[in-house]
Amino acid sequence: MLKVIKIEESVFEENEKIAEEIRNILKERKILSFNIMGGPGSGKTLFIEKTVEILKDEFKFGVIEGDIEGTEDGERIKKFNIPVVQINTGGACHLDANMVKKGIFNLPLDKIDIIFVENVGNLVCPAEFDVGTEKNIVISSITEGNGKIEKYPLMFKVSDLCILNKIDLLPYIEFDFEKFEKDLKKIAPETFLIKLSSKTGKNFNEWIEYLRKLRMEKKF
Amino acid sequence: MLKVIKIEESVFEENEKIAEEIRNILKERKILSFNIMGGPGSGKTLFIEKTVEILKDEFKFGVIEGDIEGTEDGERIKKFNIPVVQINTGGACHLDANMVKKGIFNLPLDKIDIIFVENVGNLVCPAEFDVGTEKNIVISSITEGNGKIEKYPLMFKVSDLCILNKIDLLPYIEFDFEKFEKDLKKIAPETFLIKLSSKTGKNFNEWIEYLRKLRMEKKF
Repeated sequence: MLKVIKIEESVFEENEKIAEEIRNILKERKILSFNIMGGPGSGKTLFIEKTVEILKDEFKFGVIEGDIEGTEDGERIKKFNIPVVQINTGGACHLDANMVKKGIFNLPLDKIDIIFVENVGNLVCPAEFDVGTEKNIVISSITEGNGKIEKYPLMFKVSDLCILNKIDLLPYIEFDFEKFEKDLKKIAPETFLIKLSSKTGKNFNEWIEYLRKLRMEKKF
Repeated sequence: MLKVIKIEESVFEENEKIAEEIRNILKERKILSFNIMGGPGSGKTLFIEKTVEILKDEFKFGVIEGDIEGTEDGERIKKFNIPVVQINTGGACHLDANMVKKGIFNLPLDKIDIIFVENVGNLVCPAEFDVGTEKNIVISSITEGNGKIEKYPLMFKVSDLCILNKIDLLPYIEFDFEKFEKDLKKIAPETFLIKLSSKTGKNFNEWIEYLRKLRMEKKF
């Protein structure tokens, strides 16, 4: 086991270097970038789709889709007529900075204001790999149940923003918002929380305002 | 990258040896064992709870709970007054055979008919690690959306049984059973499918009969 850990540490170091490189490239061009993480089916693609749909006349978007196999998510984004790169990790359970760098260089950076990187659906491994974006977002949906923050603490700690999704299903399932908020405050106190439904649009404007504000401040 | 792949291969070989060792130990004692996998919040723990609740007078159960951190799932099982071992992987995104071996040796094997191993909530990495159980089960819930089999093919391929869970929520979300069945038949034709709701108990008997039949056949 010790051997594996040593190898992984060197992988992390190399990854961090490439992530910094990406961050500098994007900063120079004033491109705001997000790494969207979350378990399978938490609603990452629909979240990106709805955002692009609402803001496509206001900002120029680029999207990098990360999946083990398949191009389904890439196809879903393509319909907005914006540049999309689909990365197939070929078995790897997360995106790393090197993969994202390849994605970035396949986007027309001069014509982009905001980049979304959709990571592989996984609440564990992606949290360990800085992919060079400005902000990390974790999407967790209320249908996943209440214990996710305690069980996957690193994911919530490394995220700047937590989107608690699918709140439209609240009448049909048990979910304790108070416990979720308490867990987040305890385990990841710096992480900002927005509760919304990408499907019905409920509270979605809170996220849109958050994004507009970040973009206007241009602190990145 | 090449270096990492080599290391992982040797890890897999070592893992396979220990998995075989576990399988032999359990076979000798005629213990039937299941590796329960699935994404975060797919309903793995509740599935085990309901099964134990229904069959606790018929069979003697033992449970190994795998989580990155925390003992919430272990506590949930403890209430049935059956032996439970909680494994905290300390960051690792899956159980491996070595972890499960430690769990197995902490169970009173002479007093157990059936063992459930609940893996870390993750549709990717656990599929790559044989943990020495007789059968693999993947639980996917309809709230995760329709594309899961295409996106995480290995998980469905390595599973003997696919539980499609939370069918009680069908009136409130869009889910195409036909597409799911077609994808499974195409990508993992050997994998048996049961659609049920652990929460309401709908179709749960199909799984109970499957388990009884396996246990009676004692082919393991």
